Order: sequence, then C-alpha cells, then structure tokens
Amino acid sequence: MSDLLGGKGANLAEMTQLGMPVPHGFTITTTACQEFLKHGGLDGSLVTEIDHAIGALEKSTGKKFGDTQNPLLVSVRSGAKFSMPGMMETVLNVGMNQEVAAQLENLTSDATFAWDSYRRFIQMYGKTVYEVSENKFAAVTSNILKTEGVSTIAELSAVALRALGDAYVLMIEKEIKKPFAFNARAQLIGAIEAVFHSWNSERAQIYRRRERIASDLGTAVNVQMMVFGNIGEDSGTGVCFTRDPATGAIGAYGDYLPRAQGEDVVAGIRNAFALTHLESSNKAAYDELNTIMQRLEDHYRDMCDIEFTVERGKLWILQTRVGKRTAEAAFRIAIQLVQESAISMDEALNRVTGDQLASLMFPQFDAQSNFTEIARGIAASPGAAVGEVVFDPYFAAERAREGKKVILVRRETNPDDLVGMVAAQGILTSRGGKTSHAAVVARGMGRPAVCGTDSITVDVEGKNFTCGDIVVREGDVISIDGTTGAVFVGAVPVVASQVTEYVQGAIDPSADFTSPLIKSIDRILKHADRVRKLYVRANADTAEDAAVARRMGAQGIGLTRTEHMFLGERRTLIESLVLATQDEERRKTLAEIEKLQYEDFVGIFREMHGLPVTIRLLDPPLHEFLSDPVTLAVERAIKIEKKQEITEREEALYKAVNRMHESNPMMGLRGVRLGILIPELFLTQVRALTRAAINVEQSGIAVRPEVMIPLVASQRELLHLRSELEAEINRITSLDSSSIKISIGSMIETPRAAITAAKLADYSDFFSFGTNDLTQLTWAFSRDDVESTFLPRYLDLELLPFNPFESLDQDGVGLLIKIATEQSRAAKSSLKIGVCGEHGGDPRSIHFFHALGLDYVSCSPFRVPIARLEAGRAAVNSPQLSASA
Amino acid sequence: MSDLLGGKGANLAEMTQLGMPVPHGFTITTTACQEFLKHGGLDGSLVTEIDHAIGALEKSTGKKFGDTQNPLLVSVRSGAKFSMPGMMETVLNVGMNQEVAAQLENLTSDATFAWDSYRRFIQMYGKTVYEVSENKFAAVTSNILKTEGVSTIAELSAVALRALGDAYVLMIEKEIKKPFAFNARAQLIGAIEAVFHSWNSERAQIYRRRERIASDLGTAVNVQMMVFGNIGEDSGTGVCFTRDPATGAIGAYGDYLPRAQGEDVVAGIRNAFALTHLESSNKAAYDELNTIMQRLEDHYRDMCDIEFTVERGKLWILQTRVGKRTAEAAFRIAIQLVQESAISMDEALNRVTGDQLASLMFPQFDAQSNFTEIARGIAASPGAAVGEVVFDPYFAAERAREGKKVILVRRETNPDDLVGMVAAQGILTSRGGKTSHAAVVARGMGRPAVCGTDSITVDVEGKNFTCGDIVVREGDVISIDGTTGAVFVGAVPVVASQVTEYVQGAIDPSADFTSPLIKSIDRILKHADRVRKLYVRANADTAEDAAVARRMGAQGIGLTRTEHMFLGERRTLIESLVLATQDEERRKTLAEIEKLQYEDFVGIFREMHGLPVTIRLLDPPLHEFLSDPVTLAVERAIKIEKKQEITEREEALYKAVNRMHESNPMMGLRGVRLGILIPELFLTQVRALTRAAINVEQSGIAVRPEVMIPLVASQRELLHLRSELEAEINRITSLDSSSIKISIGSMIETPRAAITAAKLADYSDFFSFGTNDLTQLTWAFSRDDVESTFLPRYLDLELLPFNPFESLDQDGVGLLIKIATEQSRAAKSSLKIGVCGEHGGDPRSIHFFHALGLDYVSCSPFRVPIARLEAGRAAVNSPQLSASA
Repeated sequence: MSDLLGGKGANLAEMTQLGMPVPHGFTITTTACQEFLKHGGLDGSLVTEIDHAIGALEKSTGKKFGDTQNPLLVSVRSGAKFSMPGMMETVLNVGMNQEVAAQLENLTSDATFAWDSYRRFIQMYGKTVYEVSENKFAAVTSNILKTEGVSTIAELSAVALRALGDAYVLMIEKEIKKPFAFNARAQLIGAIEAVFHSWNSERAQIYRRRERIASDLGTAVNVQMMVFGNIGEDSGTGVCFTRDPATGAIGAYGDYLPRAQGEDVVAGIRNAFALTHLESSNKAAYDELNTIMQRLEDHYRDMCDIEFTVERGKLWILQTRVGKRTAEAAFRIAIQLVQESAISMDEALNRVTGDQLASLMFPQFDAQSNFTEIARGIAASPGAAVGEVVFDPYFAAERAREGKKVILVRRETNPDDLVGMVAAQGILTSRGGKTSHAAVVARGMGRPAVCGTDSITVDVEGKNFTCGDIVVREGDVISIDGTTGAVFVGAVPVVASQVTEYVQGAIDPSADFTSPLIKSIDRILKHADRVRKLYVRANADTAEDAAVARRMGAQGIGLTRTEHMFLGERRTLIESLVLATQDEERRKTLAEIEKLQYEDFVGIFREMHGLPVTIRLLDPPLHEFLSDPVTLAVERAIKIEKKQEITEREEALYKAVNRMHESNPMMGLRGVRLGILIPELFLTQVRALTRAAINVEQSGIAVRPEVMIPLVASQRELLHLRSELEAEINRITSLDSSSIKISIGSMIETPRAAITAAKLADYSDFFSFGTNDLTQLTWAFSRDDVESTFLPRYLDLELLPFNPFESLDQDGVGLLIKIATEQSRAAKSSLKIGVCGEHGGDPRSIHFFHALGLDYVSCSPFRVPIARLEAGRAAVNSPQLSASA
Repeated sequence: MSDLLGGKGANLAEMTQLGMPVPHGFTITTTACQEFLKHGGLDGSLVTEIDHAIGALEKSTGKKFGDTQNPLLVSVRSGAKFSMPGMMETVLNVGMNQEVAAQLENLTSDATFAWDSYRRFIQMYGKTVYEVSENKFAAVTSNILKTEGVSTIAELSAVALRALGDAYVLMIEKEIKKPFAFNARAQLIGAIEAVFHSWNSERAQIYRRRERIASDLGTAVNVQMMVFGNIGEDSGTGVCFTRDPATGAIGAYGDYLPRAQGEDVVAGIRNAFALTHLESSNKAAYDELNTIMQRLEDHYRDMCDIEFTVERGKLWILQTRVGKRTAEAAFRIAIQLVQESAISMDEALNRVTGDQLASLMFPQFDAQSNFTEIARGIAASPGAAVGEVVFDPYFAAERAREGKKVILVRRETNPDDLVGMVAAQGILTSRGGKTSHAAVVARGMGRPAVCGTDSITVDVEGKNFTCGDIVVREGDVISIDGTTGAVFVGAVPVVASQVTEYVQGAIDPSADFTSPLIKSIDRILKHADRVRKLYVRANADTAEDAAVARRMGAQGIGLTRTEHMFLGERRTLIESLVLATQDEERRKTLAEIEKLQYEDFVGIFREMHGLPVTIRLLDPPLHEFLSDPVTLAVERAIKIEKKQEITEREEALYKAVNRMHESNPMMGLRGVRLGILIPELFLTQVRALTRAAINVEQSGIAVRPEVMIPLVASQRELLHLRSELEAEINRITSLDSSSIKISIGSMIETPRAAITAAKLADYSDFFSFGTNDLTQLTWAFSRDDVESTFLPRYLDLELLPFNPFESLDQDGVGLLIKIATEQSRAAKSSLKIGVCGEHGGDPRSIHFFHALGLDYVSCSPFRVPIARLEAGRAAVNSPQLSASA
C-alpha cells in the first residue's frame, strides 16, 4: 500500500484499522503527486475529491472546515514511499485565521495557545507556501521582541503573539504582492501544492540521489485533524522507539516534551524529558502508549518508531514506522524477535545486511574515549584514521615518506591530488558528497574519508581549517571516522572490532561472557550457512591468506593470482627470464621459478585441506615486472649526458622494455596469449602445481587443484593450450604414478568468451567469471584510470547509478554473464560456474549471482562473512534457477 | 557433387555423361579418405568395393588388370574439392611389371615406350608409395647413364631403360627391406593409400593453411585406364585454356608436347609447342579438341582448363576444370560471356571479386620494362616497392631519415625490426608465409611485402643476399612486387594503374579507345550499383578526401574523424586548451577551434552536395595531442642536470602530461566521456558544424549533416549528451531562423552498447558500428599492439583463421552486431544502421553486413569501388533480412 499512500499514509491507515487513537484524516496518493509534477498543477477532479474528503472528515470529527464557531483545523504532511526525514514540507493548523483563533481562545480558554497557534500558522504557511525566507520573519520577530522587552517568543503574551502574527501577515503581503489567503479551502490547496512541490526541492533531490531513491515516485499527502500538544500542562508531544535503536537493548526508549507541538521535538528547541516524565504526569496515557507500542511491535513484528501527542490528557498517535537502527541494534533485535517467537530465522536473516556486518568489522574509535566531535560530514569511505593535518598533496607525500601519518584536508579533490591521497591515512573535505572525486577514489583505495563536511572552512593558502571557533592548523592531529562521518581534534584511540575478532575465530560465541551482539551475529551467520545455495570461496595468493580465508569460513580458494608470487624480491626472476639470451640461462631461471612456485602451492594446498583451490596461470603482461620505461629513459639520458658507461644489462633491459611496451597492456600480451607465445612459462607453473599436489596428497592431506586459464577469447586457443597443459600434467602424474585429478577451467573475462561460452564449455571443467576485466571491456572503462578521470563526474551526474567496479552492472555486464551461464549450462549441465572478480563480495551482486544459479562466489578473505550472509539472504529471498555441486 | 567426388572426379563424371572421350575409370570418395585418415588404413568393405569397380572397368575396357596378355594399366590421381595443384600424389601405370612391359612391347611394337613406362612406374611408385628419396634414384640413374655413355634418359635404349628400372627395384628393395610389389592389386591399394596419405603431407597442409581450405575435407581418388601420350610420334599430351587466362583474350590458348606423358608438361622438362603444332600434325584430333573446348565452355558457361592426351592419333580428355585466371582476365571473360549470352549480368558480377578489383588498383611495375625476375616468394602484402637494400632495421630508419628509399631484407622479422619496417618502402624475407610476422605487420601498415622467398639466402652479418649466382649487397637497388611475389634487381619503373585512373573518374569508359578491361569493369560496377542493397559511403576527414570519395562513387561520408583536424600545425590548439589556466584563454582557444572546424565542415559539405555526412565528435584522449611523456621526462631531467631553467609552460605541460597519463587510454577518457567532462569542446564542434551547414545551405547547396557520438556505453550518458547538443543546435538554428535538420546518432563500439542497443535506439537517429574498437574490446586485443606481439603467432598456429582487424570475426564480434541490429530494429524499425570500421571495405565482412540487413557500409575512399562491387555480389548471392533508406 505504501506505493500509493506513502509510508506514513499506509501506516496511519493500518493503525486506524487496529482501532488506535489516530486523528481522523485522509491521504492524497503519490499518483496524484506524479500527475501534479507532470502538469504543474492540481487537476479539477482531484480538487473535487479533496472537497469530498474534507466533507467526510467534518462528519467524523463533528467540526467544520472554515467555520468560525466549531472550526476544523488540519495538518498537511508529506509521506513518500521511502522515509526522507526532514526533506519535505509540512503545514500545520491549516484552516486558521483571526476569527478561528479567537474562537479557539473561547473553546480552550487558553489565549496563549490560541494566538501562538495563529502565529505559528502564519509563519509556517508564509515560509512553506509563499516561500518567504526565514530571515524576513526573524527581522519582524526581533522588532516585536524588542518592543515587548523580552528575548524569546515563549515569553510573549497572547496579545503580543497576535500582534506578531499580524505583523508577519503585513510583511508577507508586501513580499508576495497579493493578499494572504485566509480562506480555509484556499489554504488547504496551497499547502497540498507546496508539499507536492517540495518533492523536487534541491535538498530532497540530493537526499534521494544519496539514498538511491527513484526520482519519479512522488510523495503522498496526509491531511489530518489537528491535535494540539501545546494546550496547557496536560498536553504534550513525544517520540518513542519500542527498543533502543542504538544498541538494540530491550525496552521502550523515547522523549517527551510537555506543552509542545511535534516540530519542537524535531527542532530540538527545548530539551526533552525521558518517557518516564509522561508516566509521572499522566499514568493512563503512559500505560495506553505502552500497550500501543506492544501492539505495534506485534503488528509490524519489528521495532517501531512512534510519534504521539497528548491533547488535554488524551493520547493521539500521529505516526509510526519500522524504526531505523544501528548495525549493532539490527543484529540484536533480529535475534531477540526470534527468541520472542515473533519472526523466523529466515526473517531474522533478512533483517540484517552484509553492509551492516561490514560496518561492524572496521576498526573503530574507542567509544570510551572522551573526545568531542567537532564536525560531522558525509561518511564517504568507512574506517577510522588518525594523523596530522596536511593541506598540500605533495607535502602530504613528503611527510608520509618521512614516516608520518597524515590526513589530507581539502575543500574538494581532483586528479592532481592523487599523490597526496595515496600517501594519506584518510581524507577530509568540506565539499562534495558520496560520489565526489574524494569519495570515489578513497573507496577505491580503501582509505577512510569524510566528505562534504560543510561546517568546516578550509583555507589551503592559510594552511588551516576552522569549525566555528576552533582553528586547526597544519601539523595538528585530528581523527576522522569514515563510518559515521565524525571529525575529532586529537588522536582518538582506535580499537580493533570485536566482530572482526569473532569472524576470524578469535572469539567463541558459545562462551558465557560473550556479548549479545556476537551471539546474535553467530546465530544469523550459521543460519545463512545452512540456507544458502552459493558456496563462498576466497581469493588468496599465499598460504597465510589461505589460512585467514579458512578461518573466515571460505569453502575453497576461487582465485590464486600467481603473478603476486613474482613481486617483491622475486621480481628479478621475470626480468632474468626476459633478458636471458641463452637457453641455459633460461632453463636455470625457469627451474628456479618452478622451485619457488612449488613451495607456494604446497603451502596453500596444506592450508586448504581438501577444499578446492583454483590457481590462475600467469596473467599480466611480462613488462609489468620490468622497470618503468620513463625512469629507464631518464637514467640512460643522464648517463649519456655525463658520458658514463651503460652496462650491457642496462642496455638489454632498456631495449627489452621498449620492445615490450604496449599502448594498452590490459588488452595486450597477457593471460592465455602469454601461455601460447612462451609455452615454457605455463608448463613450468603447471609442473610446479602438479608436483605440489602430489607431494601434499602423499603426505596424507587431500588436495583439489583446479588450473584456470585467464583471458580466453576463443575455443581454438583454449583447446591448444589445454592440450599442452594436459600433456604436461599427465607426464608428471605418470612419472609419479599418481592418480591425482587436476581440472582445467576457463576464466570468462572477455566479452567474446561470454557470448561464445557454449563453445568454451566443451573444453572447460569449470568457468570462473572475472568480472573486473569483463566490466572493463564491456564498458571500455580502464579500471586503473577511470576513478581518477571521469567516474566521479559520471556518478555526480547520475549517469551511472553506482561504480560498476564496486557493484555489478546487471543490465550490461550481468546480461553477458546471464547469456554465458544459460548457454553453457544448456551445452553442459554439469559445468561448475563461479565468480572470482571483486563483485563476488558485493551484496547486490551476490543476489544476482544467486538468482542466475551460479555455484560459488569468491572474494577477498575479509568479505567472506559478508558474502556468506548475503548468499543466505539471497536464498531466503529469491528462488535460484539451478545449481550443481 | 564435388564435395564427395572432388573437383576432378565430378568433372570427369560430367564429361563422361556428355559423351566425351574420357578414359574409363571410377572415383573413390572423400568420405573414404576421411575414414582412412581417422582409422589409419583402408577398411575391408572399401577394398571389396574397389575390387568390384576394377571388375567393371575391365568389362568396359575389354582389358584385365594384372593380366600379362591383355593388361589393364591405371592411373591413380588425387582430386580434392578445391584445386590444390601439385600438392598431392599421383601414380601412373599402376598394374605394371616386367611381364606386362614385355607384352606392351608386343602390342605396340614400341620397345622404348614399353620399357620407359616400366622405368617411370618403378620410379614413381618407389617415390610415392615407398617414400624413397629422389636423390637415391638420381644416383642409380647417374650410374646407368655413365655406363651407357649418354647424358639423358631420353637417349637410353629400350634395353638400358629396362636395366634402369631393374636397378631401381634393387635399390628400393634395399631401402625398404622388403620385396617390391609386382602384384597389380597390391600396387593399386598401395597407390590409393599413398594418395590419401598425401592429404596430410606438410606441403599440402601449408598450402591449405595459406588458401584457407579446411583440413578435414580429405581428397577423392580417381582411378582411370591409362592412356599414353608417349607411344611414338602420333602420340602426345597437352594443356589448353578456352580463352587466354592471363589477359582474357578470346581464343583457345595452350601447349602441346608430342611423345610425352602429362607429368612432362607440368614438370617443364622439355619445351612445349603451341597448340597449333597439334593442328599441323593431327588436324582431326585438333578439330575434335576445339569442338570439345566449345562444348565444355557451353557446359560450364566459363573459361575451362583442359588436360588431354593423344594416344596413337586418338584424343583423350584427362581432366577439365573452370580455369584459374588473372584479375584482368576475370573481368574481361565475364563480360565476354555476357556478350555471348552465356551468362547473365548477375552471374558476371559473381565471377569477379573485390580482391581482384583491388589487385588491379595497386601501382604496378611497368610490364614493358625489361627486368628479369630473380626470385619469386609469397605475395604477402600487395603493391610495388623500389629501394636500396638494407639489412639492419636501425640503419633502415637512419637511411629513411636521410631521404633514401629502402627495402628491408631479413631472413624473417620480429618485433625488434618494427622501426625498420616502418621506415622501409617494402619488406623482403626468405622465410615465413602469409601469416608470418613480416606479412601481418606489412599488411597492417599497407607496405608491400614478399615473404618466404626460399630461393634467396640472406646473410645479415655479411650484408648481402644471394640468389643462385647473383649477389645483392647493401645499397644495391631492388624492386619487389607484393602483388605477385616477384623480386627484381634494379629499379623497375612503376606505372599508375589504369584501373585506378578509371575508378577515380579520370578515364571515360564510353570513349572508343578505352581498353576492354576498363569497359568490362565499368559494366560490372554499374551492374553492382543497380542491384546492391547496401549504400556505400566513405570515411573522409577533409574536403580533399571527400572529393576523392565522391569520384570513387561514395554515396555519403560515413565517418569524418574530427581529431584528424587537430593534427599537424593545429596540434598546439589542444595543448593550449589543456594548459589554459584562465577562462579568457580558454574561450579564445575554443573560438579559434570553432573557426577552423567551421571551415573544415564547410569544405566537406560543399563537396558532398546533399549527400549525408556523418561527423564524429572528438574521440581520442586529449593527451594524444600532447607531447610524449618519455621525451618530456628526458628533456626535463637533462635540463635539471645541466642546471638550465625550466619555463613555466614546460613545467605546466610536464604536469599536465603526467596528470593526464592513462594506463589504457583506449578504455579511458575519450569519446562521449570527453564530451561530458568538458562540455565546451563538443558544443564548440556542434556549433561549428551547425553554422557550416546553415552557411552552405544558404549558398544553395543541400546539406545532410549527421552528428555521431563515439564510445557510447549507456542510455543515460547518451541522453545527457544528446540533450546538451540538441539545445546548442536549436539555439544556433533559431538564431539564424534556419530549418536545417541535424540528426544525432550513436557509434556502437563498446560491447555494452551492442547488447543494450535497443535502449540506445530510443535516443539515436542512427547507429554506426565502429568495428575496430568493437573488435578490440570483444577480444581484448589492443589493435596498436597485437600485430607486433602475438597475432602473427596466432595466425601461424591457426588459432585465428584470419586477422580479425582485417576481416570481421563473424562468430564473436559479428554475433554482437547481429544482436544489436535485431534488437534495435525490433524497438525502432526506422533506425538507420551502418558500419564505419575498416571492415566496411572488406569483402567477406560486406557480405555479412548485407545479410544482416544493414543500410550502409563506410570505408576508405580507395576501397569504395571494391565495396560497391562486393555489395552487388552479396545482393545477387543472398537475400537480405530488411533494409530502410
């Protein structure tokens, strides 16, 4: 129902049906808003319907709209499908004018209430409907306060409040150059139009973009009889949660403000009391509220957030919704509800998300420490970072080289700042949102970032930033929390996350002293493991990574990148191979490579203990292991300039680097092509892994090795290379009389491999989608470049809904994966299919892979628990097409 | 029928049916060969069938196979579906032994013939079936010649010939360590197996690879009664063509060799006589042959190539096939046949190819000049080149810088030689075929190349190459003909092709003095234009190119690359734009760009006179217009080393180049992304082209401008940019009150655009497939790199059937084009769809585009006539799905 009525309208309707004390009213649908936005005005039939609805409301309340004897006042509130707190307009007391206010005074014998309501209405209507700016009102207010000799509106007498309202009217009429609408019906139409308009206000647009809410949904409008929390001491207003939204602790939690309207609570003008204040002042209303809270929880089977008003002792429920909560509360409440038999474990699993689990795994600032948050920006890239403030990117790099931890502070960043961003622990900007350059690049690099902190003013020239009175200078230490957006002065202590300790197996949740959070996560993760159809593997290149992955729950290694084994000290091996001029030299190098790889593989096989291990043969172009051509050219030019001797090896290296240079190495001599051009290289790797597998198996540990050929684009090249590899594997196994089975599969990462997958299936024991390369090639987006060039701008302009390297582009890249899966399964139903690109750890992508019926996803070890959780959620949410073992 | 019987077998069967004097026989099918190759031997049922067929042959000839009184001798010849001249084995005189030879002597009273046939059989069978090497026979022959005191076999007496045959038998039995098969049936089985085996001989495999003949077809075997051209003076053998295969001139053309067997003609052992020799020696046989030639031409409705033998005055036809011919002959004969009412114009069109037309358009060596061809290699990359011989690639580059024309001569080339290949006029190698590194790279660069010239010996160290006695040293001038493979010493004069003059409109074919070739081409091209469904446009970047394109018959410009307008002197414009630090500077540069582009566009629109002109907005990354980063870094380092001052502009340029550097620019900030990030750039271009269109139209010349957005990958970016461009176009047209229409289309070159084409169609007036980029991205093949890295090896190993940048990969890239076309036409049937990648000028690809129902192809101006011809051939060959205007 919330599609049509908005969240608020749907909930009001439900509460009314439950017989709860909801002020009577009606809801104008989102469809009407869509029509309004299309045509720029309310159409006649809608106005007629509104008139009818007002008639019905008059009947049910016994009051008359626009009447001066028994006046009906109404509230006009926005209510979209998805909650957008504070983003859209509300007009209260619609139907008000001087006569009505005078009659309210008569009816309630509370002149202050009556004329304060009058004043509030004029101000609210003037701002919202006539769009008169806040400071015009402030000037009028300030005059009256001066005349009356008081300092706040609350101190004004009824007469002065009336005078203030009248003064507002004069000022408004001067601004808008037409009379103020005192007619009730005109006010109502104006208010409804203003709410509809507010759907497209700038702040609402920005909010929707950030929260990824579609911009064509429109808002509903709720028109309800006014109830007043501001008539005398036996009235008041409040907000409550059925459980603590911060920690998830059991028990109601809320604020109550006597003699106030709802907007006073939200605006935080006066300090609210705890809910117990109501208990002591009006036990009956308090008990009724508690009963209602219980009923709402029972009804929604979840923690609820409730707004209520007490008018002269009588409780009215103004609004309810399922309450927002922290990640911690989400896990705890889900399990509490299971324990209370309110929901099933499947539902509990659905109440939490992988992103929430991830947020609990970042290092966090110590909650016990006593630092004051000086500002809060947009939580753009999660994690905690501490360092000294630096404003210049080059200076940041310099300080980092000196071993200092720095936080780069900029108004906003651009590609010129990259050097500093790489060097910094974290990034703080005063401008830009979640899709700004700083945010996108920081997330890409895994650096914490707080962006769009508009309460700080950055003065790069002056080398300081200010936040109110606080001045922070270059060299001062600050702490930023990319998970919450908080900024602190000083070095806030960082604590490791207990959740991380748990998922790494360092905490046993069955121990008595363990926190409710850990126990909740444990139950939910175990349930996810029971229900999920997708296996979860990890990408791991070393025995150490493999060990971490297993502890995190990985059911195998989906990608071992053998190129990582040639970095660091071993980098010279490939250099020697490339420079070898004689067969003898070449053979020696290859023997050394074989020995080292053998040890690498033995280590991984031992750790994985019979679980499948997919080893990808060397993928990157060999020149990536050689020196940078610019550096070489400069060194050489200087040597020539200085007439210094250039050694034979230098000369050979210079020539090799130039010969092997490629303009677009990502589409160059790599992967399967390398294996075909330099067969010894892949044969050496296959020899090492076959021998390692035989050795580990003979030591009594089961092994399940899988060889993966990267960058395959055609059946012919696959067939050619596969037969070479198989021959070598058979040679080695028969030498050792081993019966070990090594399967050979294709990495599907070129668009051609995807659309001709059925042909590749003939010669593949398994497929693994390399979604990083597949995304690059399908979009023609070079991953190494786009984040620093056009991607941030694309996200800002909403040309991309999200970064396609973070979350799978299901319409494009996903379509290729779907075609490949369907056609290859049709050709070979037994084919095992997985994903080893980074999307294997992304929640939305995991749901997509589940729905396609893939067999497994593989992701970085630290994403394994998140993938397990999301695979479980996918399984309880949507049916899967099919899956093999 | 030729699938099963091979070309020769099918033609023999047809001639038999026509009642022509064909020696009786039978054909063993290609299926039998495929079975043989699979199982490695003849199976029992086939042997039984052969026995039956021999029985039938004995009946029809009245002779007996293996009989010594009335012996039947047979020939055993290969005959594949596609002619593979000289590649496979033939065994003649099967059924021969000493008794049979003695009886032949009796029957013919020609002892020399009888024992020469005996000797020939032993030698041929020994070589072919027993695989005894040629030089073993030569040694035996040489002994006998010495003993007999003569110098050639032809001088030997019958007795000596018999002794020679016997000596061969002894030698063979020693070599093969078993007795020679004198049994007729055993000989036949051995000969058939040898022919089957020869399908997979190395030379046959190489030939098939070069000619792109599938390797699993197998050969048929033709077994026929022997007829003898070597019995006395009233016997002989010959080859004739029904028209001149070199020039196409009308009238029979052929060679006749009295007292000889067919292999003597082919081997060229003795000089043959013209066909008139037969007329004077045997008028009846000559007349019969002429009648048969006419009947065969009538039957095959094409020029035929005929092998015949005269045995004791009687004419036998041994073989016929549609004759191979030169490109010139192909055009002339096709039109002759139309004039003779033998074939229709559609058929004439089908008898010629775009490749033949292309070969007639290359500059050629003057046929009148008197240079001797010293060697002939593989025609690897067409065209004529003259220059001095250089062996070292770096020296080649040096000489080229000095203004010399050089020919790079190498044994074979590898990526290290690239610098020299770029500098050279042409490339000559002694090793490697059509898919060697030299061949692939030369074709890619459009350089003439002759490869695999195995009669020359290249001595790079000694700086010379030899060819027999001829020694060519560094600095000597040679000429190479990449169209024929011929190599000449000296500077052969090069003449412009008359065909090129014709297609450029410099020759009027209706003029009386024009050559038959030009008239033939003209008729065929005009017919192609009448029947073709595909429009043919040209890629042209300047008014000059556009003028050439129109003269070549282009019906519009399918691609104007605006980046080409910023090369040369204008290169600094983009540099200024990138370096502009102030808005004023930027505006000035943009105004200058607009002015120059305006003039460019005016020129093109004027030339094209109302034909459509597709202008692609700036596509390459801007850094391509800036200096090379290595050069800049080296210059800077040296200045710093020398403590020289670095100017502000140098510093700015250095920083900009480094900031803008991309690791994979092909997938970087280019095309549509550039337009979105720097909107002024595209708006300036659109302003220039709109104003140019208005100006030209106002001058009375119609214009049809089409704006093309490159590298589109998603609907959102297209929509965003399209609305910006449209707004600017509308602004300009309304300023000028012009009603000009400018359509806006998408270049489909990312795989994502192809698979989501239906969505792009919504906001595109036309599509143009950029098949170069689409091929790069679909395969992950960087076009700039692959030819010098792995592509040659891939072609050699047959991992690719051809270079996918030369001819469209129909199974992969073509599948994407098919999906895009079908889905976008389904969404928007009026969508105009073309191709502007280089495949638009490739014959095979054109047939594919025609079959898909595309509207047009666009190619380089010089390929336009070829595309017109092939589009016509496609239209008469295959139905098209659908086509709009």
